[in-house]
Parts: sequence; C-alpha cells; structure tokens
Amino acid sequence: MSPFRGSVPFTTTWEHFRVEHADGIATVTLDRPDKINALTFEAYADLRDLLAELPHRGDTRVLVLRGEGPGFCSGGDVNEIIGELLAMRPDEHLAFTRMTGDVVRALREIPIPVIASIHGIAAGAGSVLALAADFRIVARSARFAFLFTKVGLSGSDMGAAYLLPRIAGLGNATKLLMLGDTVKAPEADKYGLVSELVEDEDLEAATTALARRLADGPALAYAQTKMLLTRELDMGLSPSLEMDAAVQALLMNTRDHAEFHRAFNAKETPKWEGR
Amino acid sequence: MSPFRGSVPFTTTWEHFRVEHADGIATVTLDRPDKINALTFEAYADLRDLLAELPHRGDTRVLVLRGEGPGFCSGGDVNEIIGELLAMRPDEHLAFTRMTGDVVRALREIPIPVIASIHGIAAGAGSVLALAADFRIVARSARFAFLFTKVGLSGSDMGAAYLLPRIAGLGNATKLLMLGDTVKAPEADKYGLVSELVEDEDLEAATTALARRLADGPALAYAQTKMLLTRELDMGLSPSLEMDAAVQALLMNTRDHAEFHRAFNAKETPKWEGR
Amino acid sequence: MSPFRGSVPFTTTWEHFRVEHADGIATVTLDRPDKINALTFEAYADLRDLLAELPHRGDTRVLVLRGEGPGFCSGGDVNEIIGELLAMRPDEHLAFTRMTGDVVRALREIPIPVIASIHGIAAGAGSVLALAADFRIVARSARFAFLFTKVGLSGSDMGAAYLLPRIAGLGNATKLLMLGDTVKAPEADKYGLVSELVEDEDLEAATTALARRLADGPALAYAQTKMLLTRELDMGLSPSLEMDAAVQALLMNTRDHAEFHRAFNAKETPKWEGR
Repeated sequence: MSPFRGSVPFTTTWEHFRVEHADGIATVTLDRPDKINALTFEAYADLRDLLAELPHRGDTRVLVLRGEGPGFCSGGDVNEIIGELLAMRPDEHLAFTRMTGDVVRALREIPIPVIASIHGIAAGAGSVLALAADFRIVARSARFAFLFTKVGLSGSDMGAAYLLPRIAGLGNATKLLMLGDTVKAPEADKYGLVSELVEDEDLEAATTALARRLADGPALAYAQTKMLLTRELDMGLSPSLEMDAAVQALLMNTRDHAEFHRAFNAKETPKWEGR
Repeated sequence: MSPFRGSVPFTTTWEHFRVEHADGIATVTLDRPDKINALTFEAYADLRDLLAELPHRGDTRVLVLRGEGPGFCSGGDVNEIIGELLAMRPDEHLAFTRMTGDVVRALREIPIPVIASIHGIAAGAGSVLALAADFRIVARSARFAFLFTKVGLSGSDMGAAYLLPRIAGLGNATKLLMLGDTVKAPEADKYGLVSELVEDEDLEAATTALARRLADGPALAYAQTKMLLTRELDMGLSPSLEMDAAVQALLMNTRDHAEFHRAFNAKETPKWEGR
Repeated sequence: MSPFRGSVPFTTTWEHFRVEHADGIATVTLDRPDKINALTFEAYADLRDLLAELPHRGDTRVLVLRGEGPGFCSGGDVNEIIGELLAMRPDEHLAFTRMTGDVVRALREIPIPVIASIHGIAAGAGSVLALAADFRIVARSARFAFLFTKVGLSGSDMGAAYLLPRIAGLGNATKLLMLGDTVKAPEADKYGLVSELVEDEDLEAATTALARRLADGPALAYAQTKMLLTRELDMGLSPSLEMDAAVQALLMNTRDHAEFHRAFNAKETPKWEGR
C-alpha cells in the first residue's frame, strides 16, 4: 500500500462492473452483456474513482479492461444516459462530460500500463476508452465506431480529437471522427490503432500473456515510460530531453537497474522488484 | 445568412476560379486547364476572401475543391508568380507568403468540412491545399509533389512542415518535403494522405456522395468536430478534455441531438437541421 | 568556413569514431566492430562536439552515420557505460543523461541533413540515434531494439518518447518503448521508421546516392526545410504559418531560387550554390 494515505478508506465493493485482483493484475470487466456493456452514469463514476485508488493499493502492476458477452463496450446507454441528459440542465451536462473526460485523463496518467482487450464492438465511449489504453489487443472480428456525430454530437468526445490524430494521423482521425463509420479490426490495424491483432479464440490468452509479462517486469521503468509517452506529447523537444535526462538519472539508482547489470554478467535472468 | 453581418456585401463574381452553390454544397473549380490550374496572385486572394465569406452566407455545409482538365493544381505559376516575385521587394515577398498561409489557415479554421477531389497532379501549393482539406478523395492515377526544394525554396511552404508530419508522421514528411519527389496515389495512401482511394472514373461520384452525405448531416456536430481536430493538435491533454467537455455539453442542447434520440426510439432516420 | 568564429580551433583528430570528409559529405563511422559499435562516454562526447563544429566548417552539406562490422550500433556499452554509471553519484548520472540528450538535440537542430545508414542491429542508444536522423536507409536484415526497459530503465532514453510517437504514432511507440522488443526492418517500415528499405548489398550504394543528391542540391533550402520540420513539431498552426511566410520570403532572395527560374526558362538543369 502507498505510504502516502490519510483518512480515506479503499472502496471494497464496486457495484457497476466486476473488479478482480490476481497476482499484480487488476481486471475490470464491464458486465452488462445484454446491453453490450453500455455505460451508465454510475459506471463512469466508478471507473474514475477506481483509477484514482488503484495506484495507492500497492498490489497492481497492470490493469486490464475487458467486456463480458458479445462485445467490449457499446458506449453510453441511449436511454439511461442520452435520454436522462436530455432532461438535464447545462451545468449537469458539463458535470457529466467533465466526468467522462476525467476517466480518460486517469487512464492516460495512471502510472500503471493499461491493456484494453477488445472483441465485438467498441463504440462511442467504448472506443475512446480503448484509445486511452496503452495497449489494444484486438480480436480479428472486433470493430471500432466513433459514432458521436451519428447521434448529433461532436466527434471529439472524451479527448478523441486529441488522442486519435496522435495515434492514427490527422487524415485518418478526421475520417473516423467526422463520419463515425464502423471500422473493422484489420482497417484499424492499418491506422495504428491495434497493438496486437489476434484470432478471436486467442484474445484471452494474448491478453493474459501481455498482462503477465508487464506484471512481472520492471514496474517503475514501465510506469515512467508511460508517464513520459503521455507527457512528451504535450512538450517540446528541449524540455522533453531534459525530463528524460532527469528520469533516467533517477532510474539509474533503482534496484532493478542494478539487478539487470548483475544478472547480465552472471548470465542470469533479472529478478525484477519494480523499485 | 449569418445574423452577424454589418456593411460588407457578399462578393457576387469570383473571377479567378469557378464557384457553384447547389443544395448546401459549394464547389470551387480551379479553371485554367491549359496550365493545369496553376495559381496566380489573384487566385490566392480570391481563395482567402471566399473562405472568409463562405461561413456567413448560411447556404454552405460543405466545400469541394477540384480542378478542371488534366490535373488538380500544379501550384504557383512559374512565370506569373515566381517570375514576378523575383522582381519584388522583401516586404512584397512577405505579403505574398502571408497571403498563401492565410489560405491554409482559413481552410483549417473554416467551420465547414472541406473535400479535396484530386486527379492528375497536385503539385507545390496544390499539394498543400490538398493537405489543408479535411478529406482527400484521390483518383488512383493522381500524384502529389511537394516540389518546393526543387525550385530552391523551403519545403515548408504554407504550413507543410506543420501539417504533413501530423498526417503522415515525421519520417515520411521529411522524405516528402526535403526531396520534393513525386508520390503516386497508392504510396500517398500508405502515408495516411488519402481519405478515399478511388478509380479515376469514380472520382466525381465519390466526391459527390461524400459531399451530399456531409451536407445532409448534423452540420454543427461536423463543424465542431473539425474545430476540435484543428485546435487540439495545438493543445495539451488536459485543456483538450476540458474543451471537449464544454463543446459536448453545448451540443447536448441542440435540436439535432434531441432529434437523434426521438428518431432512435421511434425507429426512424433522424432529420438533421444542423442546429 | 563560417565567418562567425572567434578563438576556438576546429578539432583535428576524433579518437572515438572515424570521420571522413569528401566533397560535401561528412561520414561518421562508429568503429568498434567487435562490440557492434557499443558507445562509450567518449564517443557520446565526441558526437556532441563534432555536431557543434560541423556547421561551422563550411565544407559539409550532409552527414552520414554508419557502423563498421556486423551492425549499426548496439547502444551504450554494458560494462563501460552501465557498469561505470552504477558506481557514480546522481549528479554524474544527470551529467551523463544530459550529454546523451545533447547529442539528440544536436542531430535535430544541426542545419545539415543527417542520414543514418543502418544494417544489423540498432539497439538502445543506437536506435535513438537512428530516430534523430532525418533519413533512415535501412537494410532488409536490420533490426531496431528500443531495449531500455529490458535493462530496468525508462523506455524514453534520449528523447525517444518525444520522437517515436511523432514518427510512428502513439500506439506503435508505446508498444516499442514499453516492451523493448526487437523489430525487424519490414515491421519498422510499416511504422514509418524507414525512409528507404533496401537489400543488404545495396545499402552502401543507396546511402551514397542520397548523400550525393543532398550534397549537390540547394543546401539552404534543405537546411531550412529541416529546421522547420524540427521546430513546427513544437508550434501551433498560426505561428507555423507565420514562420513559413518569413522563411520563404527570405529564400525568395537567394541565388538558388533565381537560378531555378533562369534554368527553367532556359530548359537547363539548375546549378545549385546552396546560398
């Protein structure tokens, strides 16, 4: 557990999705399969709050996001979210859209690698959750749909117009966000949206293998790599080089780096501690 | 028409290219086919001024750029532009290069989707006009040539070194802008420069189909998506998320978003008003 | 030679790699083939200092980086660098990591096109030197390995988390930097990491051909194109357009641009002076 906790307890029960912790891997399973895991207000809130707690628990080295049933996530529920919002005031709209953005920010800023394990449809907010992950392991039959304009909203929901051009280039991002059409996995792969394209029956094994590898590796090195990838998107060359210099100098003092050197000369496999 | 107009009249005659308005679609046709639509000082000025007027007319939901004759646009005319400029003073050079940059800025900032319909050659300034569009529908026989260094000038004419790395990645952009070689459509497609690659005989139909679709869709949602794609290239993650939250909250109050919800539950196709 | 030199002499002997100057082309050959050209403290220092001197010599229009023996560069030497650093203080760590960042900054900011000619392995710092070049000519059998996390360090060594997402997109960069796996040339090509993929036996000829072409071309136009590609990654659209306008107006006054126009009308090949 983090030494830097005060009065706030950890949450013991997450009611709006399943959370499992096993040997360094936290798995969040969206679990409304009859609605293809459509998100509710409470599911967004729980994601935001879980992502804030997770790094403090001290037992999590990788986070997996997956969906139960026929697909990953069909996005915000048409009636439980869109219908409800239509009856709300502007300040409530803003409180909602800020909350959804907070989830994306947390996914990008959490010092833990995030794997989205995607089958079936990743639509709307579901497709943006996938964008905000570090790794997208994608089953061959999966599809992405940034369908926001099709419901009369901006294609840049939850940072999509920030993230997608930086992943796929501005031209491809414009096509996907402006039109909102469904994109099949092989096409998404061509755009750089796919970290690993696998056969459907291999999705679970590929996800577990990558999660296991990341959980067993040099956790602080991974965390700092993610942090620098996230931050240097927003930085110039010169400050990026200075930040890299400071972070690398810090990591040169870690036990893991010394362990690498020892193991290398002993012709052994390093035993990573993550510190 | 925009309610926010004062004394300035709309221009009734554009002398340096053809402009047609039909059912929400404005089409600019570069029309000097014997020069492969080489641009003149006046054509740049007219593009700049047309792009400023267009959003105020209230009758335009999509803009198409195309070229008459054997190609899209061969760039600045060697004698009518380069020859004339060689006889000019530094302040005149700067006034010219700023005007060309103003055209690119207007293409990126106009709240209307822009489609470049490209056949034959898109060279020099012609290739940068294509870069600045939102969609590039490209005939299989088309070619791009960022040929500026071949005339002894900087490869970054009119924002090319800003736009191309963000569309195609820094490595590909360096090759194209530094060397200025001609790139065929399939290679351009590999670099993410092509929104839709079509057979030559299908170019007009594909252009019309996309223009029609955009003109009939939720115009404000498209306009805001384009605005966010343009602006968030220059913004960090955190302010991008805040801007998305505000824009999306705004769009939740539009008639189009309510119309989506009504149509969805009535199992009908939404009738978009663009507001 | 640059007219803007004071007391500092040029270095006559580079002890930690080979440097050849021939007809506008400077070639740096990493030359510890038995260690696959592993870098030492002194090799980094010499690279930093050579890159500072090179533009002042007045005889260099293109820089080629290559490796002697079985590979391009295997990165920092495990014992001569990692082992030594483990015994050093934090201020010494920082002095080292800053020096390595200075090499990358110099490669990006030197007003001379840089070609990395890559065969065999480009690993660790060797892969980042390749990233920082303008052109990567890559033999089919070559491999890249951003292996920093495998030694327990941050994947963003020397600006890698700044450069790689801008070359290959954030998703691909995350995979490469976080996992540190070896990537073969055809896969690197798919990510936009390769400027020209050649058969192994053609690497030297392809490198020489591109170097010759760049050395014989309009040097100031190339230098300014590189400068704008480097700087506009860190700039917004509006200042980028203004900078392009100023640079292009400057280049309109060069002899090379006038020579283009003369040669064009005389139906001759331009004779570039680079000024």
